[in-house]
Amino acid sequence: MKKTVFFIVIIFSVLKIYSQESDSAVIRSIFREALSNKTSYKNLEYLCTKIGGRICGSPQAAAAVEWSKQVLQQMKLDTVYLQKVKVRHWDRGEKETASISSKIYGSKDVNICTLGESVGTPIAGITAEVIEVMNFDQLKKLGKKQLTGKIVFYNREMDPKDYSTFDAYESAVDQRFIGATEAAKYGAVGVVVRSMSLADDYIPHTGIMRYDTSGTNIPAVAISTKDADMLDEWLKDDYELLFHFKTNCKFFPETESYNVIGEIKGSQFPDEIIAVGGHLDSWDIGQGAHDDGVGTVQSIEVLRLFKELEIKPKHTIRAVLFMDEESAQRGGKKYAALARVKKEKHIAAIESDEGGFTPVGFSFDTSPDTLNMINKWKSLFLPYGIYNFEKGYSGVDIHYLKGLGFPCIGLSTDSQRYFDYHHSAADTFDKVNQREMQLGSAAMATLVYLLDKDAIK
Amino acid sequence: MKKTVFFIVIIFSVLKIYSQESDSAVIRSIFREALSNKTSYKNLEYLCTKIGGRICGSPQAAAAVEWSKQVLQQMKLDTVYLQKVKVRHWDRGEKETASISSKIYGSKDVNICTLGESVGTPIAGITAEVIEVMNFDQLKKLGKKQLTGKIVFYNREMDPKDYSTFDAYESAVDQRFIGATEAAKYGAVGVVVRSMSLADDYIPHTGIMRYDTSGTNIPAVAISTKDADMLDEWLKDDYELLFHFKTNCKFFPETESYNVIGEIKGSQFPDEIIAVGGHLDSWDIGQGAHDDGVGTVQSIEVLRLFKELEIKPKHTIRAVLFMDEESAQRGGKKYAALARVKKEKHIAAIESDEGGFTPVGFSFDTSPDTLNMINKWKSLFLPYGIYNFEKGYSGVDIHYLKGLGFPCIGLSTDSQRYFDYHHSAADTFDKVNQREMQLGSAAMATLVYLLDKDAIK
Repeated sequence: MKKTVFFIVIIFSVLKIYSQESDSAVIRSIFREALSNKTSYKNLEYLCTKIGGRICGSPQAAAAVEWSKQVLQQMKLDTVYLQKVKVRHWDRGEKETASISSKIYGSKDVNICTLGESVGTPIAGITAEVIEVMNFDQLKKLGKKQLTGKIVFYNREMDPKDYSTFDAYESAVDQRFIGATEAAKYGAVGVVVRSMSLADDYIPHTGIMRYDTSGTNIPAVAISTKDADMLDEWLKDDYELLFHFKTNCKFFPETESYNVIGEIKGSQFPDEIIAVGGHLDSWDIGQGAHDDGVGTVQSIEVLRLFKELEIKPKHTIRAVLFMDEESAQRGGKKYAALARVKKEKHIAAIESDEGGFTPVGFSFDTSPDTLNMINKWKSLFLPYGIYNFEKGYSGVDIHYLKGLGFPCIGLSTDSQRYFDYHHSAADTFDKVNQREMQLGSAAMATLVYLLDKDAIK
Repeated sequence: MKKTVFFIVIIFSVLKIYSQESDSAVIRSIFREALSNKTSYKNLEYLCTKIGGRICGSPQAAAAVEWSKQVLQQMKLDTVYLQKVKVRHWDRGEKETASISSKIYGSKDVNICTLGESVGTPIAGITAEVIEVMNFDQLKKLGKKQLTGKIVFYNREMDPKDYSTFDAYESAVDQRFIGATEAAKYGAVGVVVRSMSLADDYIPHTGIMRYDTSGTNIPAVAISTKDADMLDEWLKDDYELLFHFKTNCKFFPETESYNVIGEIKGSQFPDEIIAVGGHLDSWDIGQGAHDDGVGTVQSIEVLRLFKELEIKPKHTIRAVLFMDEESAQRGGKKYAALARVKKEKHIAAIESDEGGFTPVGFSFDTSPDTLNMINKWKSLFLPYGIYNFEKGYSGVDIHYLKGLGFPCIGLSTDSQRYFDYHHSAADTFDKVNQREMQLGSAAMATLVYLLDKDAIK
């Protein structure tokens, strides 16, 4: 009896070693194919340089839908289809202008960009004195008396001391998001926000802002970090200097757009889905390369890798290219709503929206038990520099799937450079390194492969 | 008695936890200071843009010695001094030219650069038919009959499938290093080597080559990857095409140069040294930013971090800026020879020569026992993305210290982009991200701090 147990243990150990070894071999083939094939990088080049920035509702966003549908169709997948998404359509209009006039320093043009979904200025622009603040408490202390008729200048920087650039972003982005609403409460006529960037340069960074429904909507713009530093310096000597800015943005009626979806059907469980996604829309300035052209082409690449390497999945592998992440996440919400209505069974959803930098791990929005099970795969990723499996947030588009009982997973990258480009004219194709991006594609494909093979249901 | 043991265990456990916590706090302060202070990045900017490429023996290399000595002196260190190093002085001369003439395709200029320490061509240049090979076996098979009077074109690429870019480099660099000598054995008149690069572009990459003493020295140049691909294509249709190149390099007499050294003296063991280093020389094309301006300014930065944060080391912390890594490592050899002669006691030596990319770990050339002891610090590094502690090669300059009984350690970086810039005109200041570089400085300072505190002697 004891002998039998002994042999069973031996057999299971051998099988386990064999399984890990054969997984290693498959994963190796995934990484080697991803690193040496140019399809995905060429896709990114097309999306960035031929279509360009693609804010939702724009002709470019429509072109991106059509292009990505065609790319998926040419891959001879089992299914390619669109999901209708009604989207807002805000347009920047003619390029913004701004200048500072000081009796001490003279006049100087500065680089700004309108924040996403801000109201525009009157045709003549806005000209006013500037009050610099670091936070909303300071606003409150200054009060209506000192702020009425003024432009509020939010100048709290993303803290460079923070190792996590996302933490640094989170701790400063309130200024951009609700700064206009907060300043309007005290009679301010406009806001200028220091760009959410860790780089010292003349590039302004946009991003979504929101008004609440109670107050006056005042125009909001971002100023480059170097110009913010200059404005700060000038204000020390000349608090009466005048800031002028003119923006030309407006809303058009809502339009119809789409999530774009392609699938390889599962051989055993065609109705059970592993989704990989990125978002197809981007800001209008720049080319939306890191944010999130990369997530788009990586998701397509996961399917290409499976087909090229002839890995036949048991479950359906679905690439989802979400529309409207940057504004109101109508694509993510619609996808989740339809998944609920259709009672689709997902095994997992993975999102890439941290740029095409070297992947370092995954952030798992799941139960500790599931994470423990996933953690056993860690050693398979380690040879490719992917070491960080942690519990955390998944992604802006897929987090609407939360509560459906399967892991939502975000690809984590080495994001030290991310906010140099994020939401700015600098987010262009040439800033993405082919190998770094493709390591991300391979990391996602590897996780999909393991989830498919050893599904945690 | 049992109670006493129990309490002792408790006390030691508390002390251990306290010690790790206080280490964490110090390390946190190191990373936060490194990420938010601009001194080191400004040093790199000066070295790259004001001094520029600094091949050993050149006026720029001399300027780099003088500048770095002054930088260290201004830091009010305990000791700043130079170590004399006699160096070779090879000069590229006027920019190289090359062209291909084909009866089918016409004529085209191509981008080349002379390999380091190659002989030059005759004044009229060299013009000959081209034989393309992938390795030395092919050369041998072709033999004198087919190679005499020809230019040998080595076109084996760095394998993009390889996750490790250094492995990909190692497996292709023999073509550059001894390709001329091998080709000369069969009567070839010159060699053209595909650039050691993983990028598709028009940038040629130089690097050292060597002749053996037995044969004829024939000129050797590198061609950009895109031009190599074109030449390969053209040769398929026109094996009689002519390649012409002209190089203008020559040797000058050997000159005196220096390793530059700065020290913070240890409070308890001033005669026991922890060395951190990079190399001051670089190739002449480009600015030697990643290779190895970064290692230079990071080594200086380790000292600045100790001073700024008022960490008083028990052992002497020494920054060593080595001369002549790229050619004959006379600086590294001299440093090791003097350490032996003076019977200096080192605790450890750390080198940074993998570029200013995000650090991922260290490569330890030491005994398994020592590595085991060092491994206990791993958790202190993990919050900063530094996860990979492995046994391996240390660095080109410090490996001459091997055998003296202390660990030689190389900083490991995320080197996916390294060979896009390495040894080329693209290795410029703007390619280095301040945060990524400074994480490397902080990683080195942290390791120095721990080695100093818990010295393994």
